[in-house]
Amino acid sequence: MKGLLIVGHGSEKSHYAKVMEIHKERIEKMGIFDEVEICYVARNRKPTPDEAVRKMKSDEIYVVPILISKGIHFTEDLPAFFNFKPGQREGVFDGKRIVICDPIGEDRFVTLAIINAVFKLLE
Amino acid sequence: MKGLLIVGHGSEKSHYAKVMEIHKERIEKMGIFDEVEICYVARNRKPTPDEAVRKMKSDEIYVVPILISKGIHFTEDLPAFFNFKPGQREGVFDGKRIVICDPIGEDRFVTLAIINAVFKLLE
Repeated sequence: MKGLLIVGHGSEKSHYAKVMEIHKERIEKMGIFDEVEICYVARNRKPTPDEAVRKMKSDEIYVVPILISKGIHFTEDLPAFFNFKPGQREGVFDGKRIVICDPIGEDRFVTLAIINAVFKLLE
Repeated sequence: MKGLLIVGHGSEKSHYAKVMEIHKERIEKMGIFDEVEICYVARNRKPTPDEAVRKMKSDEIYVVPILISKGIHFTEDLPAFFNFKPGQREGVFDGKRIVICDPIGEDRFVTLAIINAVFKLLE
């Protein structure tokens, strides 16, 4: 089984969690992954990445941070949840193979999302 | 003249500014806008949105936040830089028409960026 774990920063405002749910539901419908879950990397936000992985059934989990850049949350905080060293991108946690993907920030689809924000106003 | 102002949260790590530059350069090459500039909404990050607008020559500026959700940075901090009320999305600042677009978070292109982060590993 292949799983996707979407990692957000998290926010006190409920809209952030709603946005995470929107992406989860869209990707579930596409059927690329056997399961899609959500977690948060900022302090005190739940579920944490390790909690999410423990609840997942997949033996291979792709972890995708909805973060703009490779900051501390990406290089240190996220790996630490899986007992990885800073910068470590692959390993085993809770008996599952964990692969940490690049944060989405540089992706060309993000460039298109920026332009689309303007197109939406012109419709 | 139509301008695009990309608003990031900002980070102490230099990679964040690099990601902003990547999007700016890609969008400049597309020629949709007469000018493309960058600014930051988090405390003490430079340039601030108002500083960026003052340097721009466009009479119409579309402001696009690279933020996931409609949190405090979007609803209160960003409008305040233009002397707008909380939640205000359009107005005039420095003699220019300012239009604040939705944050990119919910966009379908962001969903695709999440999936693409995994595809990139499989290449």
